[in-house]
Amino acid sequence: MTEKPQLRLVGSSRDNPLNKKRLKTWIRLLRTTRKAEAHLREMLRIQYDTTLPRFDVMAALYRRRDGTTMSELSRLLLVSNGNATTIVDRLEADGLCQRQASSSDRRSVRVRLTPEGVEAFEAMAADHETEIARLFAAWNASDLDSLSRILKKLSTEDAS
Amino acid sequence: MTEKPQLRLVGSSRDNPLNKKRLKTWIRLLRTTRKAEAHLREMLRIQYDTTLPRFDVMAALYRRRDGTTMSELSRLLLVSNGNATTIVDRLEADGLCQRQASSSDRRSVRVRLTPEGVEAFEAMAADHETEIARLFAAWNASDLDSLSRILKKLSTEDAS
Repeated sequence: MTEKPQLRLVGSSRDNPLNKKRLKTWIRLLRTTRKAEAHLREMLRIQYDTTLPRFDVMAALYRRRDGTTMSELSRLLLVSNGNATTIVDRLEADGLCQRQASSSDRRSVRVRLTPEGVEAFEAMAADHETEIARLFAAWNASDLDSLSRILKKLSTEDAS
Repeated sequence: MTEKPQLRLVGSSRDNPLNKKRLKTWIRLLRTTRKAEAHLREMLRIQYDTTLPRFDVMAALYRRRDGTTMSELSRLLLVSNGNATTIVDRLEADGLCQRQASSSDRRSVRVRLTPEGVEAFEAMAADHETEIARLFAAWNASDLDSLSRILKKLSTEDAS
C-alpha cells in the first residue's frame, strides 16, 4: 500500500502489456470466484437454510475441533472479529457450538462445535464438496497443479 | 444445482483424489481473491474514501459510456438490482452519474456517468491498475496465459 504508484493514467497499461494482462486476468479470476460463490451460497441456502459466512465459521471450528479463540477464528476466516462474534452467538443459540472459559486462564474463552454442530457441519460439507466437484469438473489434474503453482507464487507477496 | 449429488460423506473425497484437489484449489483460489480484494478495498477507502461496490458500478458505467439500463448494469456487476440502485442513487446525489428517460421509450430509464463521474473514475482506475500490477507482480506472461486458459475452461460450465 505504501509503494508509490508508477502508473497514473487510465489506459497507461496499454504501454505495459503485462500489466494490462494482469488486470484482465484479475477480472476474470474475480468473476469466476464470485460465480462459484454464488452457486455455493444458493446451495447452502436452499438445502440447509444457511449462509456462506456461517458455513465458513463452522468449517474453521471443525478444523480446530479441540477449541479455538475468537481471534484465531477471525484470522482463519479473513472476516472481522465482530462478524465472527455474531455468527458464533447464533451458532451457540442453535446449540451447534459452545464457548468455554479456559481452565488455565479464565479470561481466555475457547469456542468449539458441539457434537450436534459436528454432525450438522459434516452433512453440509459433503454437499459442499459435491458442489465444488461439479463446478470445477472441467479442471483436470494438470489444470489443478498449474493453478496451485501459480497461486502459490503470490503467497510471499500478498502479505505485504 | 439440479444434478444429483454423488458424494454424501465428509472425507469421501479421499476416495477421489481429483475432487479433493478441486476442493483444496478452490479454497486457495478463494483466499487469494479475498486477500487481493481486501487490498483493493483498503486502497479505495484510504485514497478515495470509496468502496469496492461503488468502484465496480462506476467501472461498469464507464464501459457503457453511452448509457445503460439498471438491469443491464446489475448483470454486468453480478450484484442484486437493489444494491446497484442504492449505489446509483448515491452517485447521482454526488453528481457523478445521471438517470435519463429514453427518448424512444419514456418508461425505460438509462443511467450514465457525468463528465465529473468520468474524471473521478479515471483517477481511481489508474490507482486500481497500479495496485493490481503490484499485487500480481509475481505472475509473468506465461503464468497469466496459463491462468486465463484454465479459467476459460469453466466458462461453458459455470452458466449451468
